[in-house]
Amino acid sequence: MASHSLTLPSSSPTFAPFSSHQILPPSLSTVRFPRPINTKPNHHSLRCSVSIEKEVPETERPFTFLRDSDDDSTHSSSTSVRARFEAMIRAAQDSVCEAIEAVESGPKFKEDVWSRPGGGGGISRVLQDGNVFEKAGVNVSVVYGVMPPEAYRAAKGSASSDQKPGPVPFFAAGVSSVLHLKNPFAPTLHFNYRYFETDAPKDVPGAPRQWWFGGGTDFTPAYIFEDDVKHFHTIQKQACDKFDPSFYPRFKKWCDDYFYIKHRDERRGLGGIFFDDLNDYDQEMLLKFSTECANSVVPAYIPIVEKRKDMEFTEQHKAWQQLRRGRYVEFNLVYDRGTTFGLKTGGRIESILVSLPLSARWEYDHKPEEGTEEWKLLDACINPKEWI
Amino acid sequence: MASHSLTLPSSSPTFAPFSSHQILPPSLSTVRFPRPINTKPNHHSLRCSVSIEKEVPETERPFTFLRDSDDDSTHSSSTSVRARFEAMIRAAQDSVCEAIEAVESGPKFKEDVWSRPGGGGGISRVLQDGNVFEKAGVNVSVVYGVMPPEAYRAAKGSASSDQKPGPVPFFAAGVSSVLHLKNPFAPTLHFNYRYFETDAPKDVPGAPRQWWFGGGTDFTPAYIFEDDVKHFHTIQKQACDKFDPSFYPRFKKWCDDYFYIKHRDERRGLGGIFFDDLNDYDQEMLLKFSTECANSVVPAYIPIVEKRKDMEFTEQHKAWQQLRRGRYVEFNLVYDRGTTFGLKTGGRIESILVSLPLSARWEYDHKPEEGTEEWKLLDACINPKEWI
Repeated sequence: MASHSLTLPSSSPTFAPFSSHQILPPSLSTVRFPRPINTKPNHHSLRCSVSIEKEVPETERPFTFLRDSDDDSTHSSSTSVRARFEAMIRAAQDSVCEAIEAVESGPKFKEDVWSRPGGGGGISRVLQDGNVFEKAGVNVSVVYGVMPPEAYRAAKGSASSDQKPGPVPFFAAGVSSVLHLKNPFAPTLHFNYRYFETDAPKDVPGAPRQWWFGGGTDFTPAYIFEDDVKHFHTIQKQACDKFDPSFYPRFKKWCDDYFYIKHRDERRGLGGIFFDDLNDYDQEMLLKFSTECANSVVPAYIPIVEKRKDMEFTEQHKAWQQLRRGRYVEFNLVYDRGTTFGLKTGGRIESILVSLPLSARWEYDHKPEEGTEEWKLLDACINPKEWI
Repeated sequence: MASHSLTLPSSSPTFAPFSSHQILPPSLSTVRFPRPINTKPNHHSLRCSVSIEKEVPETERPFTFLRDSDDDSTHSSSTSVRARFEAMIRAAQDSVCEAIEAVESGPKFKEDVWSRPGGGGGISRVLQDGNVFEKAGVNVSVVYGVMPPEAYRAAKGSASSDQKPGPVPFFAAGVSSVLHLKNPFAPTLHFNYRYFETDAPKDVPGAPRQWWFGGGTDFTPAYIFEDDVKHFHTIQKQACDKFDPSFYPRFKKWCDDYFYIKHRDERRGLGGIFFDDLNDYDQEMLLKFSTECANSVVPAYIPIVEKRKDMEFTEQHKAWQQLRRGRYVEFNLVYDRGTTFGLKTGGRIESILVSLPLSARWEYDHKPEEGTEEWKLLDACINPKEWI
């Protein structure tokens, strides 16, 4: 085994829980910082204002990662949104992993459980180099932290205040997954559902508790099978339509806008749904909506995997898949808010970067010939389509 | 061939030359923006303040990329530093490519030449999937742009001024190269030498013209052969010692500090030399020093390539090389100033990203066993050593 010095970054934060400089560590993008901070990264100030506790490996999954004060599972009624969201994401992790292991018939997920001394923790599950999946990562994490008052103010949308509130404690939980398959005709899938809650700042009378939901499921094939794309988007739309007819068109567009590789003027893939900072609906409704979305992952994806996993392919098909994987890496390392923020704040690196494919490729100035299947995929990434 | 819409980003800037919002486009890190801007990227403000002309392909290499007004090659004496630096980097490009083609004995570089309507341009040369080299990119570029006055003020180090100067025209030129080899025992090499010059701001009497040099050569093997590392560092030290005995120790440390993957607490490789914003020596001396460094690339590197290119290796050696390539990608996409700035400012993407390897790999939570050759390399990346 590697020595300790190989695994513990010298820049790892101290174990002092919840200093005023602590903040949210996303793990595999499970949780994200509110937009006003994330979209204007200032590396210098992030380095100064952010640190998180080092995670500690655990030998067993705990019943909950919530702090005792939050864990109201012993109460008979009105379980908190925190507790129900954690239960939901852990159930989603179980069901997705179960479905993947059923497809694999043999290879199993490797699990890493960790906690942080001040509360919170996570479960990373990775199945690498399986029969069907090249790399499948399914993570949950629960984070307690303290956000700077500016972030809280930005989140609640009031730009100015004469009062100077102190740091605001927050809670965040999420499930996040990236599934890369071996067969170049079988698409990569990413999904992530997360819930974020702040305390009411004690030193500002009347300032409210904040909460919001975020997430999405998106689909990144190397080759287009229209039936697959329609099936995938139809399941997303059905999940959305149960709650609000405006959700699918709005979140479909948001997805196309978010997974955008600006320097290429390409989307990473063929989209799906994406939403963030969602708090302008009933909280119970949004919890149910997130649950519905998470439950839609298996029916949206696994039938496509079954159809494509054994298709014959050539070296050329594989090389194109690897090139598209290169784009996946470019998006995740350069643009993805969860990844870039996580790398800078000392989150669990292996959990954050499990989103990267097992292998990727960059060819100089590669341009598929017009009219080929490769060109059609690229065209759909450049000019997003309505699939249903 | 791909349609035009596949290759021309919709976000590509207009052709209006040298608006007040134009700024330096590095290509494969050949040129860089002064540190005060680069180390505190603010994506939003960069997007607003920076744009460059779209490059235009050329069928032939021009004699010079300098503007007519700069091209004093017809004069009998005192050729400008701009002109001499361009001649130097183009000669370096030629000699490195020639040495690589000699090793390849068969495969040749593919060349792309481009210019920008307002002046400047570049030559990208790439040899991909050769006999020995997996991907070898050797680029030169010459850039004319306009920098915001804040950047000029930061460069000259005077923090405040009552006067409001306008945008300052600048010139930048550089050679940059990344050489990835097939054999996992043969190291990756990167080198980059660049020269930067501003005009004297016309609207601030007495404000000087600025100039500085930057660059370096660094060495990234997947396996350590002490003789190779010593040879490589010795040649770097010899080049430095011809000019100043303080150069090698100072630039060796600068290199270890710069090629640092913060989220891993690892250096990208085994270092070499790196310097930036160098203007506190005689300008002629620094031009000669840069030339000496560029001329040292072939003797520092090619003998190692010859020694290692045909060594037998296993799949395990190859997989480790691919994992280290993954780290190379992480450094270049997340931290490298030239790359990250280039991606955000609309430089020639294929030239910028030719630094990425043909293929790379990410395994979840990979840790080499203590005492193995893989562990020794990782240990040297975590704890930089004095090699000579």
